[in-house]
Amino acid sequence: MQKLKQDKWKVLSRKYLHTRPWLTVRQDSYELPDGRVLPEYYILEYPEWVNTLAITKDKKFVFVSQYRPGLEQNDYELCAGVSEKTDKDMEAAARRELLEETGFGGGTWREYMVISANPSSTNNLTHCFVAEDVEPIGDRHLDASEDLQVHLLSQDEVRELLVTDNIKQATQAAPLWKYFAENKLL
Amino acid sequence: MQKLKQDKWKVLSRKYLHTRPWLTVRQDSYELPDGRVLPEYYILEYPEWVNTLAITKDKKFVFVSQYRPGLEQNDYELCAGVSEKTDKDMEAAARRELLEETGFGGGTWREYMVISANPSSTNNLTHCFVAEDVEPIGDRHLDASEDLQVHLLSQDEVRELLVTDNIKQATQAAPLWKYFAENKLL
Repeated sequence: MQKLKQDKWKVLSRKYLHTRPWLTVRQDSYELPDGRVLPEYYILEYPEWVNTLAITKDKKFVFVSQYRPGLEQNDYELCAGVSEKTDKDMEAAARRELLEETGFGGGTWREYMVISANPSSTNNLTHCFVAEDVEPIGDRHLDASEDLQVHLLSQDEVRELLVTDNIKQATQAAPLWKYFAENKLL
Repeated sequence: MQKLKQDKWKVLSRKYLHTRPWLTVRQDSYELPDGRVLPEYYILEYPEWVNTLAITKDKKFVFVSQYRPGLEQNDYELCAGVSEKTDKDMEAAARRELLEETGFGGGTWREYMVISANPSSTNNLTHCFVAEDVEPIGDRHLDASEDLQVHLLSQDEVRELLVTDNIKQATQAAPLWKYFAENKLL
């Protein structure tokens, strides 16, 4: 496979339009390798995100649901969240989110996939974990903006969500399809 | 599987902070079903997006690569783009993008997956197509901001990109994993 040419675009200017807790917008201008100038290119800056495909000892998949104002609907989702400065690494962030949102923890964890919601306009990555043999270990502690339900789904139910195109979050559909593919669960 | 409760959040106010061609930011405030108020919730509005898993008659996968300022790197990607008002539907948008970016067209098309880059903060969907038996049918016509290369990859090469976690765009990793899973190509 051909090695990709890595000519970066040259940053001509950079300024921040918004630096709010949930919205950081940067406006860059770039010069392309052939000399063209793009005067107005927007980058959304975020902390790293995490999500977890968590499976209990009795083979239930831990899902959550909550209203999503972007799409204006509720969907089944993996437990997911934002890494915080106090998390020692991405696995710690994912473990914290799983405990806060669902009360589940423990088990065997591994980083499974690292992807981007949009490489052209977002600067962060989503770290997707698989956690096997999780169990209830504590109380839930939701953030002020959270209003979510926990669902323990069977493998058949998760497969049904996948094949009927009802996993809408791309950073979760990707690791779920990978997991069902690698483990021959389709 | 439990039917999801669909209590929408109530919109208390809504204003636009930016309405630029490549950046539309809306600031909403919401009241949650339990009465809590979220005064500052940002939604990024975009047109619908499309991408295409295009395969030639001799079973090569049509990929592109370009510099992505969000992640500051080049990666192999599916051909993708933004729907335009002049596209009669999402398949027409995907066919136009494939022709403009790669010169390939024709073949048999089907919508394969509809997903969101981020249901909480983006209001659009990405329509993913599979196009089989495409062939070179015209000249490429890149947009002013585009600087991309076309790559015809073998099935083994695409599998290698997947298993080494080198497909970074989540809205593309999801349909690619689904395709390799459903067609037992792993």
